[in-house]
Amino acid sequence: MKISIIGTGAVGRILASKLVELGHEVKIGTRNVSDTLANNAKDTYGNPAFKDWHAANSKVGLGTFTETAAFGELVINATNGGNSLTALKLAGDKNLAGKVLIDIANPLDFSKGMPPSLLQGLNNTHSLGEEIQDAFPKTKVVKTLNTMSCGLMVNPNMIGGGDHINFISGNDNEAKSKVRKLLKEFGWRDENLLDIGDITGARATESVLPIWLKVMGVIKTGAFNFKLVK
Amino acid sequence: MKISIIGTGAVGRILASKLVELGHEVKIGTRNVSDTLANNAKDTYGNPAFKDWHAANSKVGLGTFTETAAFGELVINATNGGNSLTALKLAGDKNLAGKVLIDIANPLDFSKGMPPSLLQGLNNTHSLGEEIQDAFPKTKVVKTLNTMSCGLMVNPNMIGGGDHINFISGNDNEAKSKVRKLLKEFGWRDENLLDIGDITGARATESVLPIWLKVMGVIKTGAFNFKLVK
Repeated sequence: MKISIIGTGAVGRILASKLVELGHEVKIGTRNVSDTLANNAKDTYGNPAFKDWHAANSKVGLGTFTETAAFGELVINATNGGNSLTALKLAGDKNLAGKVLIDIANPLDFSKGMPPSLLQGLNNTHSLGEEIQDAFPKTKVVKTLNTMSCGLMVNPNMIGGGDHINFISGNDNEAKSKVRKLLKEFGWRDENLLDIGDITGARATESVLPIWLKVMGVIKTGAFNFKLVK
Repeated sequence: MKISIIGTGAVGRILASKLVELGHEVKIGTRNVSDTLANNAKDTYGNPAFKDWHAANSKVGLGTFTETAAFGELVINATNGGNSLTALKLAGDKNLAGKVLIDIANPLDFSKGMPPSLLQGLNNTHSLGEEIQDAFPKTKVVKTLNTMSCGLMVNPNMIGGGDHINFISGNDNEAKSKVRKLLKEFGWRDENLLDIGDITGARATESVLPIWLKVMGVIKTGAFNFKLVK
């Protein structure tokens, strides 16, 4: 499948590598291609400069947000939550219309110190997932994978034999089925993919971030997740 | 130990029964004792009238919020989150000063329909646990048990061999140790009691409610919890 990834950070890169490994055609999008390739610095998390990553992952196409969104039949929003709307607007309504958009982003507000809170207006009674769905009504937004670190997203078997939970929400059942199929390619088991209903489910999964961040602060690793015990 | 329970709903009752069974002296508090005993109706969740429950649990003392708070060396807030501050103010600052207060309540807002959201002003960058700690600075507030149904609070072994998580937060380490000991009496294993730091941890555990409510809506039972997989 042709897949577009919006965002060249750690999340976008790990998804791009894995999707290529799985045999998909992938293009990754950035605001300004030449600026991104000219940047020699590691990112704030110590990840290599994009151009070094891209040299080692040359099967991944590179384009502007617009070119990237136009490329795929499925689009993944892997931008920083605070910039997602801007990036997706640059990607363009017509390039997203009719497509499934997997939204992995979290509306984190780093302005008040660490750990971040959720952005005002995008928490409790609203969410980033809903904000994106509202802004792009012809796009089928599916919220998933936003409750874990990016390594686990594409490799659930990294911990606990892969037996832990990933939530899915969205208004379109066919879109959710398509996303579920892709998640299974990553190694997710059907019984651990919990459909929590329409896109208002994003309020719930984005609200997992505060406890996720607290736990990460205590156990000093992001390589963890929660398993549903019943 | 002499333990006070503020709130005569399902949570307060199940805690009272269990604590008596464990050999503690327990008093349960209500706003108006004669009104509570005069009420013959089941509650909104179908639980029996308080007086029927109390007849079957006669070892549990009954008093006003004030009398109850004065009784115990440890106090448990088992009121509805929206009423907690009012109830605790009636219980009285002097009856709570110097004591450990276990806060189990969640600031749920049922006014916007189901599932409830969190109350405005008590979410994301604030929490009920902090609000209580701010209102009663001489009291040692410990937030715990608020991320599960009340049956599980006192009987973790009901599911998954008891192997699932319960978070603890609070500003006073000695108070947290005392609470941890009590939780172990309920059957909680030390390794599943995760101390997430000071009382700002209440922001994180109260934020678990949205996903908890979504999951309950999907699996149609409250008899579930999450296990930390790492």
